[in-house]
Amino acid sequence: MGSLVEELVGVLGAAQVSADETVLASYAVDQAPVLDFQLPEAVVFAGSVADVQAVVRLCGAHKVSVVARGAGTGVSGGAHASRNSVVLSLERMNRILDLNPEDETAVVEPGVINAALNEAAAPHGLMYAPDPASFRTSTIGGNVATNAGGLRCAKYGVTRDSVLALDVVMADGSLIHTGHQTFKGVAGYDLTGLFVGSEGTLGIVVGATVRLKYLPREVHTIAAFYPDFRQAAAGVLAVGRARVQPAIMELLDGGTLAQLDEIHGSDLSVRGRSLLLIQTDGFGAAAEADVVRSVLAAGGARVSTEATAEAEQLVELRRNSRGAEVDDQYRVGEDVAVPRSRLVDYVAVLEDLAAEHHVNLKVVAHAGDGNLHPTFWVDRKDSAVDTDAMERLNLALDASVTAALAMGGTITGEHGIGQYKLRWLGLEQPEPVRQLQRRIKDLFDPAGILNPGKAI
Amino acid sequence: MGSLVEELVGVLGAAQVSADETVLASYAVDQAPVLDFQLPEAVVFAGSVADVQAVVRLCGAHKVSVVARGAGTGVSGGAHASRNSVVLSLERMNRILDLNPEDETAVVEPGVINAALNEAAAPHGLMYAPDPASFRTSTIGGNVATNAGGLRCAKYGVTRDSVLALDVVMADGSLIHTGHQTFKGVAGYDLTGLFVGSEGTLGIVVGATVRLKYLPREVHTIAAFYPDFRQAAAGVLAVGRARVQPAIMELLDGGTLAQLDEIHGSDLSVRGRSLLLIQTDGFGAAAEADVVRSVLAAGGARVSTEATAEAEQLVELRRNSRGAEVDDQYRVGEDVAVPRSRLVDYVAVLEDLAAEHHVNLKVVAHAGDGNLHPTFWVDRKDSAVDTDAMERLNLALDASVTAALAMGGTITGEHGIGQYKLRWLGLEQPEPVRQLQRRIKDLFDPAGILNPGKAI
Repeated sequence: MGSLVEELVGVLGAAQVSADETVLASYAVDQAPVLDFQLPEAVVFAGSVADVQAVVRLCGAHKVSVVARGAGTGVSGGAHASRNSVVLSLERMNRILDLNPEDETAVVEPGVINAALNEAAAPHGLMYAPDPASFRTSTIGGNVATNAGGLRCAKYGVTRDSVLALDVVMADGSLIHTGHQTFKGVAGYDLTGLFVGSEGTLGIVVGATVRLKYLPREVHTIAAFYPDFRQAAAGVLAVGRARVQPAIMELLDGGTLAQLDEIHGSDLSVRGRSLLLIQTDGFGAAAEADVVRSVLAAGGARVSTEATAEAEQLVELRRNSRGAEVDDQYRVGEDVAVPRSRLVDYVAVLEDLAAEHHVNLKVVAHAGDGNLHPTFWVDRKDSAVDTDAMERLNLALDASVTAALAMGGTITGEHGIGQYKLRWLGLEQPEPVRQLQRRIKDLFDPAGILNPGKAI
Repeated sequence: MGSLVEELVGVLGAAQVSADETVLASYAVDQAPVLDFQLPEAVVFAGSVADVQAVVRLCGAHKVSVVARGAGTGVSGGAHASRNSVVLSLERMNRILDLNPEDETAVVEPGVINAALNEAAAPHGLMYAPDPASFRTSTIGGNVATNAGGLRCAKYGVTRDSVLALDVVMADGSLIHTGHQTFKGVAGYDLTGLFVGSEGTLGIVVGATVRLKYLPREVHTIAAFYPDFRQAAAGVLAVGRARVQPAIMELLDGGTLAQLDEIHGSDLSVRGRSLLLIQTDGFGAAAEADVVRSVLAAGGARVSTEATAEAEQLVELRRNSRGAEVDDQYRVGEDVAVPRSRLVDYVAVLEDLAAEHHVNLKVVAHAGDGNLHPTFWVDRKDSAVDTDAMERLNLALDASVTAALAMGGTITGEHGIGQYKLRWLGLEQPEPVRQLQRRIKDLFDPAGILNPGKAI
């Protein structure tokens, strides 16, 4: 493979190509569990669309795979290196090419950080709505590749709903433009939607035109503590029944509250065994918050009367709760979604599974979407004397996924299939549907060089 | 072809198959201009998924095309019969199979009328958001086939944004299920999005799971009259600059107002040469309406102080403005969309084109989306003595499409390509993008029996 690296250096220059072992190792995986660790042949840092085209063409000629990568914050292994691959980092392509406050659109390179786009949009009274927990570090390109969700999805939609057009480098190195600059457009098939969430397996997104939404002038945050998790989940349905659409509706269970207390010295656990955090926004925010407060109080919640600042701090804690994992635990986590009416039932199933398999459980949920992130865990010190702990963790995990599917749910609400969730995909999608996707993949990438073994 | 009809009757029964000339003629076209009139071999009225599968298989065996059809309200010819085809009407598959007020979803057969779903949802405080002008007669299946828009899109999104899952009969007669029952789901490629808007060319939608939105309790309607159309278009941008998101933002020019006056005996033309109709809804409706009124008044509008009932009647008039076409005119109309910042410029271009080509112009626009429906027309009595009137109409039409594209627009915001707009598709999409779509079509429908000559 030396010759491929040499050719890459020849075309792109040495500053954009690395075969250094340390670099290869740090770009070999994203933040997902690693099932099959592989070092790439090289890491290439593209600076332009032409660079991406050159890399794809060279790799194609050498029959080497291309694993496109943003910030590597994915949690499903969509950016894990595969055997005989080059990792193509798009993080240096980080320019906001256009931000038009009248059109309410922006054109960005794939490496633009989600938060950076929001910072650029805010002075114009605009925001880029999709806000995955990783928004401070993840890239728009990565968000597009995984069709990332976030906290604000229930009201503002997922990444797909904010993407109007894409520039995509195809497997043969050609460049196409899909979609439209306008809010609406129905000319031909929805190629844009097909690329969104395809994890770099159909083409490499090198540019995106996104729609911006209005930054709400008023935000009200409500913290509602409950004696147990099931009652909190019922609160989510009660807010729905009142036909109020919050911008954010996050559910945290007792295990999550205890962990946050440990890390941040807060006293959340004292205040309740479960927390429902709700934000309303926009011109109706105050009126909506009033309805939410009364509905939740009627359902047994201790509803905060504290200053918005304090409740907002809780939202910040929630946003960071994923980053707070600790090293003295073994954990397996998921990203299922269930129909909203099944939230309470599903939470009950999770609690039963934790008890049955003698593992600990903590759950956070984008409850407005029915999207849950349950984590089963055991203390590392216990597992030293408890050799089947990992097996029990995995049994609980598998059972939690099966239970979500049995309720009409999905195995992934927003993280994507990547490499990690392929094991469950056949449980959700029957063979003809999977076969159709494989044939689409073959059509777009006949040689199979684009991020093989991911997504489908 | 007698034998195909006999076989269809044999499988489905005589009550579901017609080869009657009158029936064939009335099902030969939708509401689009007819470029190439063809009578189908038969019209089949499917009553079940199995019926659709049988029809597709029989037609495949006979190498006869299948043109799926809802209520036939499309205006791009997506449901025009083609040579050697069977028209497959789905209007009898009109059951709402499920409406779950807690999940906020509904499962419908394709022939369910848009308004019927809304009527069923309303008692639960829910609505099906996409509201094409044809909502009282068009079907959800037809809406899905064209990715229909409507008045409420700017705030609530287009059909795609409300569709969670589809049941689709493929070209080989097999049935697949795409998508998810949950609000979010990113397992595999977005096949659902690929079928939405594909006009029955990739598969036949026989069922849809849709997300319902909250029916707003409060709606405020504002009628703002302007001395000219360009100022009214500028008003749309001013509302955007105030970062208020109305549910409806409709722009009507003087020609449209005059026509409405003629039909309904109203006095709109006396009140202004252009009308901007805005509805705000939800908990913030009143506050938003206040901002809108002050912004519009500052921009030179005469803002209504009339009762909401009267302003709402204007919205009703607007909804029906398309149905008010008269027989003593020749008309050509369009469905372009432009980036919002170009609205004023584009309106100016339209007025210049009408003057240049000596034709009349009227325009209505879903202005919040930059989606315009300009119609050029001449009086039929004039055209008797003015033999190149039709040619001038078409020159103005073509120039209006080209101008929209030059501004970064699209040739179709919401009506679809169908058969009618194929003439312009090459101006919007370069050959590689069109080729990719043809290859997807070939993958899904190798024999080319599903609604050939449409959409791409």
